[in-house]
Amino acid sequence: MKTRDRILMKSLELFNEAGERSITTNHIAAALNISPGNLYYHFRSKEDIIYEIFLTYENSMVQALSVPDDRVITYTEKIGYFESIFNQLWEYRFLHRDLGHLLEESPRLRASYRQFARKVMAQAYLVYNALRKAELIQATEQDVQAMIVNIWILTTSWASFVVSSGFFGEEVVLTQRLLRRGIYQIICLEAPYLQNEALERLPDLLKQYGD
Amino acid sequence: MKTRDRILMKSLELFNEAGERSITTNHIAAALNISPGNLYYHFRSKEDIIYEIFLTYENSMVQALSVPDDRVITYTEKIGYFESIFNQLWEYRFLHRDLGHLLEESPRLRASYRQFARKVMAQAYLVYNALRKAELIQATEQDVQAMIVNIWILTTSWASFVVSSGFFGEEVVLTQRLLRRGIYQIICLEAPYLQNEALERLPDLLKQYGD
Repeated sequence: MKTRDRILMKSLELFNEAGERSITTNHIAAALNISPGNLYYHFRSKEDIIYEIFLTYENSMVQALSVPDDRVITYTEKIGYFESIFNQLWEYRFLHRDLGHLLEESPRLRASYRQFARKVMAQAYLVYNALRKAELIQATEQDVQAMIVNIWILTTSWASFVVSSGFFGEEVVLTQRLLRRGIYQIICLEAPYLQNEALERLPDLLKQYGD
Repeated sequence: MKTRDRILMKSLELFNEAGERSITTNHIAAALNISPGNLYYHFRSKEDIIYEIFLTYENSMVQALSVPDDRVITYTEKIGYFESIFNQLWEYRFLHRDLGHLLEESPRLRASYRQFARKVMAQAYLVYNALRKAELIQATEQDVQAMIVNIWILTTSWASFVVSSGFFGEEVVLTQRLLRRGIYQIICLEAPYLQNEALERLPDLLKQYGD
Protein backbone atom coordinates (compact mmCIF):
# COMPACT_ATOMS: atom_id res chain seq x y z
CA MET A 1 0.00 0.00 0.00
CA LYS A 2 1.18 3.52 -0.80
CA THR A 3 2.33 5.68 2.14
CA ARG A 4 -0.37 8.22 1.37
CA ASP A 5 -3.09 5.59 1.70
CA ARG A 6 -1.50 4.13 4.83
CA ILE A 7 -1.58 7.61 6.41
CA LEU A 8 -5.29 7.99 5.58
CA MET A 9 -6.20 4.55 6.91
CA LYS A 10 -4.24 4.93 10.14
CA SER A 11 -5.60 8.44 10.73
CA LEU A 12 -9.17 7.22 10.32
CA GLU A 13 -8.48 4.39 12.76
CA LEU A 14 -6.95 6.70 15.37
CA PHE A 15 -9.64 9.40 14.96
CA ASN A 16 -12.37 6.80 15.41
CA GLU A 17 -10.74 5.28 18.47
CA ALA A 18 -9.52 8.31 20.36
CA GLY A 19 -11.49 11.21 18.84
CA GLU A 20 -10.01 13.53 16.23
CA ARG A 21 -9.14 16.24 18.76
CA SER A 22 -6.69 14.19 20.76
CA ILE A 23 -4.77 12.90 17.71
CA THR A 24 -1.98 15.00 16.21
CA THR A 25 -0.01 14.45 13.00
CA ASN A 26 2.86 13.36 15.27
CA HIS A 27 0.71 10.61 16.74
CA ILE A 28 -0.17 9.45 13.24
CA ALA A 29 3.45 9.44 12.06
CA ALA A 30 4.54 7.56 15.20
CA ALA A 31 1.80 4.94 14.79
CA LEU A 32 2.97 4.32 11.22
CA ASN A 33 6.64 4.35 12.16
CA ILE A 34 7.39 7.12 9.67
CA SER A 35 8.96 10.54 10.26
CA PRO A 36 6.75 13.64 10.64
CA GLY A 37 8.63 15.00 7.61
CA ASN A 38 7.47 12.05 5.53
CA LEU A 39 3.88 12.64 6.64
CA TYR A 40 4.10 16.33 5.76
CA TYR A 41 5.40 15.37 2.33
CA HIS A 42 1.96 13.81 1.69
CA PHE A 43 -0.32 16.12 3.71
CA ARG A 44 0.32 19.71 4.71
CA SER A 45 -1.86 19.48 7.84
CA LYS A 46 -4.30 17.39 9.85
CA GLU A 47 -7.08 19.37 8.19
CA ASP A 48 -5.81 18.05 4.84
CA ILE A 49 -6.05 14.48 6.11
CA ILE A 50 -9.54 15.01 7.52
CA TYR A 51 -10.69 16.54 4.26
CA GLU A 52 -9.38 13.58 2.23
CA ILE A 53 -11.11 11.14 4.59
CA PHE A 54 -14.32 13.12 4.22
CA LEU A 55 -14.12 12.83 0.41
CA THR A 56 -13.85 9.03 0.71
CA TYR A 57 -16.82 9.01 3.10
CA GLU A 58 -18.87 11.17 0.76
CA ASN A 59 -18.09 8.88 -2.14
CA SER A 60 -19.10 5.72 -0.23
CA MET A 61 -22.33 7.32 0.95
CA VAL A 62 -23.38 8.44 -2.52
CA GLN A 63 -22.47 4.96 -3.88
CA ALA A 64 -24.50 3.32 -1.11
CA LEU A 65 -27.59 5.21 -2.26
CA SER A 66 -27.44 4.37 -5.96
CA VAL A 67 -30.70 3.29 -7.59
CA PRO A 68 -31.02 0.66 -10.35
CA ASP A 69 -32.23 2.47 -13.46
CA ASP A 70 -33.19 -0.54 -15.58
CA ARG A 71 -35.67 -2.29 -13.27
CA VAL A 72 -37.89 -1.94 -10.20
CA ILE A 73 -36.20 -1.81 -6.81
CA THR A 74 -36.65 -4.85 -4.52
CA TYR A 75 -37.43 -5.19 -0.84
CA THR A 76 -34.00 -6.71 -0.20
CA GLU A 77 -32.34 -3.70 -1.80
CA LYS A 78 -34.44 -1.43 0.41
CA ILE A 79 -33.04 -3.08 3.55
CA GLY A 80 -29.60 -3.00 1.98
CA TYR A 81 -29.64 0.81 2.02
CA PHE A 82 -29.98 0.90 5.81
CA GLU A 83 -27.23 -1.65 6.22
CA SER A 84 -24.72 0.06 3.99
CA ILE A 85 -25.45 3.56 5.29
CA PHE A 86 -25.00 2.50 8.89
CA ASN A 87 -21.85 0.58 7.97
CA GLN A 88 -20.43 3.79 6.51
CA LEU A 89 -21.47 5.71 9.63
CA TRP A 90 -19.54 3.20 11.71
CA GLU A 91 -16.44 3.25 9.47
CA TYR A 92 -16.28 7.06 9.65
CA ARG A 93 -17.85 7.52 13.08
CA PHE A 94 -15.47 10.28 14.22
CA LEU A 95 -16.98 12.62 11.61
CA HIS A 96 -20.49 12.80 13.06
CA ARG A 97 -19.52 12.56 16.71
CA ASP A 98 -17.91 15.97 16.54
CA LEU A 99 -19.15 17.47 13.29
CA GLY A 100 -19.79 20.99 14.62
CA HIS A 101 -16.16 21.34 15.66
CA LEU A 102 -14.79 19.95 12.38
CA LEU A 103 -16.94 22.29 10.31
CA GLU A 104 -15.94 25.26 12.42
CA GLU A 105 -12.24 24.53 11.95
CA SER A 106 -12.36 24.11 8.18
CA PRO A 107 -14.20 26.43 5.78
CA ARG A 108 -13.39 24.02 2.94
CA LEU A 109 -15.01 21.11 4.80
CA ARG A 110 -17.97 23.32 5.73
CA ALA A 111 -18.67 24.12 2.08
CA SER A 112 -18.18 20.52 0.96
CA TYR A 113 -20.35 19.14 3.75
CA ARG A 114 -23.23 21.30 2.57
CA GLN A 115 -22.88 20.03 -0.99
CA PHE A 116 -22.70 16.52 0.42
CA ALA A 117 -25.90 17.00 2.46
CA ARG A 118 -27.73 18.24 -0.62
CA LYS A 119 -26.36 15.44 -2.80
CA VAL A 120 -27.37 12.71 -0.34
CA MET A 121 -30.85 14.16 0.19
CA ALA A 122 -31.34 14.38 -3.59
CA GLN A 123 -30.18 10.77 -3.90
CA ALA A 124 -32.51 9.69 -1.07
CA TYR A 125 -35.34 11.33 -2.99
CA LEU A 126 -34.58 9.11 -6.00
CA VAL A 127 -34.56 6.08 -3.71
CA TYR A 128 -37.99 6.98 -2.30
CA ASN A 129 -39.37 7.58 -5.75
CA ALA A 130 -38.13 4.13 -6.77
CA LEU A 131 -39.75 2.67 -3.63
CA ARG A 132 -43.04 4.35 -4.50
CA LYS A 133 -42.81 2.98 -8.05
CA ALA A 134 -42.15 -0.48 -6.64
CA GLU A 135 -45.24 -0.01 -4.41
CA LEU A 136 -43.24 -0.68 -1.27
CA ILE A 137 -44.02 2.81 0.02
CA GLN A 138 -47.20 4.83 -0.24
CA ALA A 139 -46.63 8.50 0.54
CA THR A 140 -47.40 11.92 -0.85
CA GLU A 141 -44.74 14.22 -2.22
CA GLN A 142 -44.93 16.27 1.00
CA ASP A 143 -44.56 13.13 3.16
CA VAL A 144 -41.47 12.06 1.23
CA GLN A 145 -39.82 15.47 1.38
CA ALA A 146 -40.31 15.74 5.15
CA MET A 147 -39.29 12.11 5.71
CA ILE A 148 -35.98 12.57 3.89
CA VAL A 149 -35.03 15.54 6.08
CA ASN A 150 -36.06 13.65 9.22
CA ILE A 151 -34.12 10.55 8.21
CA TRP A 152 -31.04 12.64 7.40
CA ILE A 153 -31.16 14.29 10.83
CA LEU A 154 -31.76 11.01 12.66
CA THR A 155 -28.98 9.25 10.80
CA THR A 156 -26.35 11.94 11.19
CA SER A 157 -27.29 12.70 14.83
CA TRP A 158 -27.65 9.13 16.06
CA ALA A 159 -24.02 8.72 17.25
CA SER A 160 -24.19 11.97 19.25
CA PHE A 161 -27.55 10.97 20.70
CA VAL A 162 -26.23 7.61 21.90
CA VAL A 163 -23.28 9.25 23.63
CA SER A 164 -24.90 12.43 24.99
CA SER A 165 -28.29 11.18 26.19
CA GLY A 166 -27.27 8.13 28.18
CA PHE A 167 -30.33 6.47 26.62
CA PHE A 168 -28.54 3.12 26.58
CA GLY A 169 -26.86 3.42 29.99
CA GLU A 170 -24.70 5.65 32.10
CA GLU A 171 -21.15 5.43 30.79
CA VAL A 172 -21.90 4.38 27.26
CA VAL A 173 -19.24 3.81 24.62
CA LEU A 174 -20.40 3.89 21.01
CA THR A 175 -20.37 0.30 19.75
CA GLN A 176 -21.33 -0.96 16.31
CA ARG A 177 -24.38 -2.63 17.87
CA LEU A 178 -25.59 0.67 19.42
CA LEU A 179 -24.95 2.55 16.21
CA ARG A 180 -26.94 -0.04 14.24
CA ARG A 181 -29.79 0.42 16.72
CA GLY A 182 -30.37 3.66 14.82
CA ILE A 183 -31.74 1.55 11.95
CA TYR A 184 -34.63 0.60 14.23
CA GLN A 185 -35.51 4.28 14.71
CA ILE A 186 -35.52 4.87 10.95
CA ILE A 187 -37.71 1.81 10.40
CA CYS A 188 -40.23 3.17 12.95
CA LEU A 189 -40.21 6.52 11.19
CA GLU A 190 -40.98 4.89 7.84
CA ALA A 191 -43.43 2.30 9.18
CA PRO A 192 -46.67 4.27 8.59
CA TYR A 193 -45.87 4.55 4.88
CA LEU A 194 -44.99 0.94 4.09
CA GLN A 195 -47.14 -1.30 1.92
CA ASN A 196 -47.14 -4.81 0.39
CA GLU A 197 -44.00 -6.86 1.08
CA ALA A 198 -42.42 -4.04 3.07
CA LEU A 199 -45.47 -3.89 5.36
CA GLU A 200 -45.75 -7.68 5.70
CA ARG A 201 -42.12 -7.98 6.75
CA LEU A 202 -42.25 -5.03 9.18
CA PRO A 203 -42.85 -7.04 12.39
CA ASP A 204 -39.81 -9.25 11.68
CA LEU A 205 -37.71 -6.21 10.89
CA LEU A 206 -38.69 -4.43 14.11
CA LYS A 207 -37.75 -7.55 16.05
CA GLN A 208 -34.45 -7.92 14.21
CA TYR A 209 -33.26 -4.35 14.74
CA GLY A 210 -35.02 -3.57 18.01
CA ASP A 211 -32.77 -5.48 20.39
CA MET B 1 -31.84 42.81 39.43
CA LYS B 2 -29.16 41.04 41.45
CA THR B 3 -25.63 41.03 40.00
CA ARG B 4 -25.68 37.25 39.92
CA ASP B 5 -28.80 37.23 37.72
CA ARG B 6 -27.46 40.01 35.52
CA ILE B 7 -24.32 37.92 34.91
CA LEU B 8 -26.41 34.92 33.91
CA MET B 9 -28.64 36.93 31.58
CA LYS B 10 -25.80 38.74 29.88
CA SER B 11 -23.79 35.52 29.49
CA LEU B 12 -26.73 33.79 27.84
CA GLU B 13 -27.16 36.73 25.48
CA LEU B 14 -23.47 36.77 24.53
CA PHE B 15 -23.23 32.99 24.16
CA ASN B 16 -26.27 32.97 21.88
CA GLU B 17 -24.97 35.80 19.75
CA ALA B 18 -21.30 34.97 19.39
CA GLY B 19 -21.06 31.30 20.37
CA GLU B 20 -19.92 30.17 23.81
CA ARG B 21 -16.36 29.46 22.70
CA SER B 22 -15.51 33.01 21.74
CA ILE B 23 -16.85 34.56 24.95
CA THR B 24 -14.63 34.71 28.04
CA THR B 25 -15.52 35.77 31.60
CA ASN B 26 -13.65 39.01 30.82
CA HIS B 27 -16.00 39.72 27.93
CA ILE B 28 -18.98 39.13 30.21
CA ALA B 29 -17.63 41.41 32.95
CA ALA B 30 -16.83 44.13 30.41
CA ALA B 31 -20.30 43.94 28.85
CA LEU B 32 -21.84 44.39 32.32
CA ASN B 33 -19.41 47.11 33.29
CA ILE B 34 -18.29 45.21 36.39
CA SER B 35 -14.80 44.08 37.39
CA PRO B 36 -13.64 40.50 36.66
CA GLY B 37 -13.17 40.20 40.43
CA ASN B 38 -16.83 40.98 41.00
CA LEU B 39 -17.79 38.32 38.44
CA TYR B 40 -15.52 35.76 40.13
CA TYR B 41 -17.16 36.57 43.44
CA HIS B 42 -20.40 35.13 41.99
CA PHE B 43 -19.04 32.41 39.68
CA ARG B 44 -15.72 30.60 39.93
CA SER B 45 -15.53 29.92 36.19
CA LYS B 46 -17.30 30.11 32.84
CA GLU B 47 -18.20 26.45 33.32
CA ASP B 48 -20.06 27.50 36.49
CA ILE B 49 -22.06 30.06 34.52
CA ILE B 50 -22.88 27.59 31.73
CA TYR B 51 -23.99 25.03 34.28
CA GLU B 52 -26.34 27.51 35.99
CA ILE B 53 -27.81 28.50 32.62
CA PHE B 54 -28.32 24.84 31.80
CA LEU B 55 -30.27 24.34 35.07
CA THR B 56 -32.62 27.18 34.12
CA TYR B 57 -33.04 25.67 30.65
CA GLU B 58 -33.77 22.24 32.12
CA ASN B 59 -36.35 23.72 34.45
CA SER B 60 -38.17 25.60 31.66
CA MET B 61 -38.20 22.52 29.45
CA VAL B 62 -39.67 20.26 32.12
CA GLN B 63 -42.25 22.96 32.95
CA ALA B 64 -43.13 23.30 29.27
CA LEU B 65 -44.01 19.61 29.15
CA SER B 66 -46.31 19.48 32.19
CA VAL B 67 -49.58 17.58 31.76
CA PRO B 68 -52.92 18.58 33.35
CA ASP B 69 -53.81 15.80 35.80
CA ASP B 70 -57.44 16.73 36.47
CA ARG B 71 -58.87 16.70 32.93
CA VAL B 72 -58.33 15.61 29.34
CA ILE B 73 -55.68 17.44 27.33
CA THR B 74 -56.92 19.70 24.49
CA TYR B 75 -55.79 20.21 20.91
CA THR B 76 -54.72 23.78 21.70
CA GLU B 77 -52.51 22.52 24.51
CA LYS B 78 -50.98 19.99 22.13
CA ILE B 79 -49.87 22.77 19.78
CA GLY B 80 -48.73 24.76 22.80
CA TYR B 81 -46.10 22.12 23.57
CA PHE B 82 -44.38 22.67 20.22
CA GLU B 83 -44.50 26.42 20.64
CA SER B 84 -43.04 26.51 24.12
CA ILE B 85 -40.38 23.87 23.43
CA PHE B 86 -39.12 25.71 20.35
CA ASN B 87 -39.23 29.00 22.24
CA GLN B 88 -36.95 27.46 24.87
CA LEU B 89 -34.68 26.12 22.14
CA TRP B 90 -34.39 29.63 20.77
CA GLU B 91 -33.79 31.26 24.18
CA TYR B 92 -30.96 28.81 24.93
CA ARG B 93 -29.80 28.14 21.38
CA PHE B 94 -26.07 28.17 22.15
CA LEU B 95 -26.52 24.94 24.16
CA HIS B 96 -27.55 22.69 21.28
CA ARG B 97 -25.43 24.33 18.61
CA ASP B 98 -22.29 23.08 20.28
CA LEU B 99 -23.48 20.49 22.74
CA GLY B 100 -20.73 17.92 22.08
CA HIS B 101 -18.06 20.43 23.02
CA LEU B 102 -19.87 21.62 26.17
CA LEU B 103 -20.41 18.06 27.40
CA GLU B 104 -16.80 17.18 26.75
CA GLU B 105 -15.55 20.15 28.77
CA SER B 106 -17.72 19.54 31.83
CA PRO B 107 -18.25 16.13 33.47
CA ARG B 108 -20.87 17.73 35.72
CA LEU B 109 -22.86 19.02 32.75
CA ARG B 110 -22.45 15.64 31.01
CA ALA B 111 -24.03 13.80 33.94
CA SER B 112 -26.82 16.37 34.34
CA TYR B 113 -27.58 16.41 30.62
CA ARG B 114 -28.18 12.67 30.69
CA GLN B 115 -30.59 13.00 33.60
CA PHE B 116 -32.26 15.85 31.73
CA ALA B 117 -32.65 13.73 28.56
CA ARG B 118 -34.24 10.94 30.57
CA LYS B 119 -36.52 13.34 32.45
CA VAL B 120 -37.76 15.04 29.28
CA MET B 121 -38.36 11.76 27.47
CA ALA B 122 -40.30 10.42 30.48
CA GLN B 123 -42.34 13.64 30.50
CA ALA B 124 -42.96 13.38 26.76
CA TYR B 125 -44.24 9.87 27.37
CA LEU B 126 -46.84 11.26 29.80
CA VAL B 127 -47.84 13.86 27.20
CA TYR B 128 -48.35 11.16 24.56
CA ASN B 129 -50.34 9.05 26.96
CA ALA B 130 -52.57 12.04 27.65
CA LEU B 131 -52.91 12.61 23.88
CA ARG B 132 -53.92 8.98 23.41
CA LYS B 133 -56.46 9.29 26.23
CA ALA B 134 -57.85 12.44 24.59
CA GLU B 135 -58.09 10.46 21.31
CA LEU B 136 -55.96 13.00 19.47
CA ILE B 137 -53.33 10.36 18.76
CA GLN B 138 -53.74 6.69 17.89
CA ALA B 139 -50.54 4.76 18.30
CA THR B 140 -49.24 1.55 19.86
CA GLU B 141 -46.87 1.53 22.81
CA GLN B 142 -44.00 0.70 20.44
CA ASP B 143 -44.96 3.57 18.10
CA VAL B 144 -44.96 6.04 20.99
CA GLN B 145 -41.64 4.88 22.42
CA ALA B 146 -39.91 5.18 19.04
CA MET B 147 -41.60 8.49 18.26
CA ILE B 148 -40.40 10.08 21.51
CA VAL B 149 -36.78 9.18 20.75
CA ASN B 150 -37.13 10.45 17.18
CA ILE B 151 -38.73 13.70 18.30
CA TRP B 152 -36.03 14.23 20.93
CA ILE B 153 -33.29 13.77 18.32
CA LEU B 154 -35.01 16.01 15.77
CA THR B 155 -35.65 18.74 18.31
CA THR B 156 -32.19 18.80 19.83
CA SER B 157 -30.41 18.43 16.46
CA TRP B 158 -32.47 20.90 14.46
CA ALA B 159 -30.26 23.95 15.12
CA SER B 160 -27.13 22.04 14.05
CA PHE B 161 -28.92 20.72 10.98
CA VAL B 162 -29.95 24.21 9.87
CA VAL B 163 -26.40 25.50 10.19
CA SER B 164 -24.40 22.49 8.94
CA SER B 165 -26.51 21.25 6.03
CA GLY B 166 -27.11 24.48 4.17
CA PHE B 167 -30.65 23.16 3.63
CA PHE B 168 -32.03 26.70 3.82
CA GLY B 169 -29.31 28.38 1.78
CA GLU B 170 -25.58 28.79 1.54
CA GLU B 171 -24.45 31.14 4.33
CA VAL B 172 -27.29 30.57 6.73
CA VAL B 173 -27.55 32.23 10.13
CA LEU B 174 -29.87 30.59 12.63
CA THR B 175 -32.95 32.79 12.94
CA GLN B 176 -36.00 32.24 15.09
CA ARG B 177 -38.01 31.58 11.93
CA LEU B 178 -35.63 28.85 10.76
CA LEU B 179 -35.54 27.30 14.20
CA ARG B 180 -39.34 27.24 14.33
CA ARG B 181 -39.34 25.50 10.95
CA GLY B 182 -38.33 22.45 13.00
CA ILE B 183 -41.91 22.33 14.31
CA TYR B 184 -43.00 21.47 10.76
CA GLN B 185 -40.68 18.46 10.74
CA ILE B 186 -42.09 17.22 14.06
CA ILE B 187 -45.66 17.67 12.80
CA CYS B 188 -44.83 15.56 9.72
CA LEU B 189 -43.33 12.89 11.95
CA GLU B 190 -46.48 12.73 14.06
CA ALA B 191 -48.95 13.10 11.17
CA PRO B 192 -49.60 9.39 10.53
CA TYR B 193 -50.76 8.92 14.14
CA LEU B 194 -53.18 11.83 14.43
CA GLN B 195 -56.95 11.41 14.74
CA ASN B 196 -60.12 13.47 15.27
CA GLU B 197 -59.54 17.20 15.76
CA ALA B 198 -55.77 16.80 15.44
CA LEU B 199 -56.18 15.08 12.07
CA GLU B 200 -58.80 17.56 10.82
CA ARG B 201 -56.56 20.50 11.61
CA LEU B 202 -53.42 18.92 10.14
CA PRO B 203 -53.58 20.60 6.68
CA ASP B 204 -53.84 24.06 8.28
CA LEU B 205 -51.00 23.27 10.62
CA LEU B 206 -48.74 22.08 7.81
CA LYS B 207 -49.45 25.28 5.94
CA GLN B 208 -48.84 27.44 9.01
CA TYR B 209 -45.47 25.92 9.91
CA GLY B 210 -44.28 24.87 6.47
CA ASP B 211 -43.25 28.29 5.16
